[in-house]
Amino acid sequence: MDIPLISHVGIAVKDFEKSLKKYALINGEDRPPIHDVADQKVKVAIFKGGCCGGGARVELVTPTEDDSPVAKFLESKGEGLHHICLYVEDIDAKLAELKKAGVRLIDETPRIGAEGNKIAFVHPKDMNGVLIELEEFPKPTL
Amino acid sequence: MDIPLISHVGIAVKDFEKSLKKYALINGEDRPPIHDVADQKVKVAIFKGGCCGGGARVELVTPTEDDSPVAKFLESKGEGLHHICLYVEDIDAKLAELKKAGVRLIDETPRIGAEGNKIAFVHPKDMNGVLIELEEFPKPTL
Repeated sequence: MDIPLISHVGIAVKDFEKSLKKYALINGEDRPPIHDVADQKVKVAIFKGGCCGGGARVELVTPTEDDSPVAKFLESKGEGLHHICLYVEDIDAKLAELKKAGVRLIDETPRIGAEGNKIAFVHPKDMNGVLIELEEFPKPTL
Repeated sequence: MDIPLISHVGIAVKDFEKSLKKYALINGEDRPPIHDVADQKVKVAIFKGGCCGGGARVELVTPTEDDSPVAKFLESKGEGLHHICLYVEDIDAKLAELKKAGVRLIDETPRIGAEGNKIAFVHPKDMNGVLIELEEFPKPTL
């Protein structure tokens, strides 16, 4: 295995600006890049580390619409750690392997993420309550 | 900032062996190193990535005693993402800065972690429900 393990960790927050300021205190990055992710109906602030090609990121995620999956998460569970995104080398092969092992998948086939890379979600029910996003590594050159 | 952002993410699990097998499926590491952390009364399996000096790790954490903080977490919240550990350059200065900003701290002064490095926990109440561990980077040479 010669790929990093964690792509990013997503934290669901309600008050985006207030949360940004608090996480900036720890992460030492005053105004991280902010992206709209239309298909999830969320806004994301991405804190990056300073080494290792960026390294694993911390993402603050807040819904932009009431029917966003993150809005539903906030309603039922409140703010907190929302998901972890793990890198895999061959996402199609990994999904097939997980399915064969009886692990429930949210996405049986990968979709294209915000950065043009293949991603897929695994169901938290079979992963100790953890919503896991898989991301193919390396990312394609766009 | 020239340090990585995430040291590790901790996942609280009940059935350690069963969980290990599931995470091994994704992470491609059959039998990661397992450590006892006496002061937290937990057992930890550490999955490491293959690049960037190890990169951010995924840790499966299970209590070894009924009065472990992780046993209490499992009782009240069930299995799931438990904490995220972020690197900081000067942990004493960072704790002082957070305290000054009104952020509640679990550890007002750092303690020594399992690897000989300085660590401290920040209270989840002020960090959007996320239990944050701070870890000084780089680790000392033991």
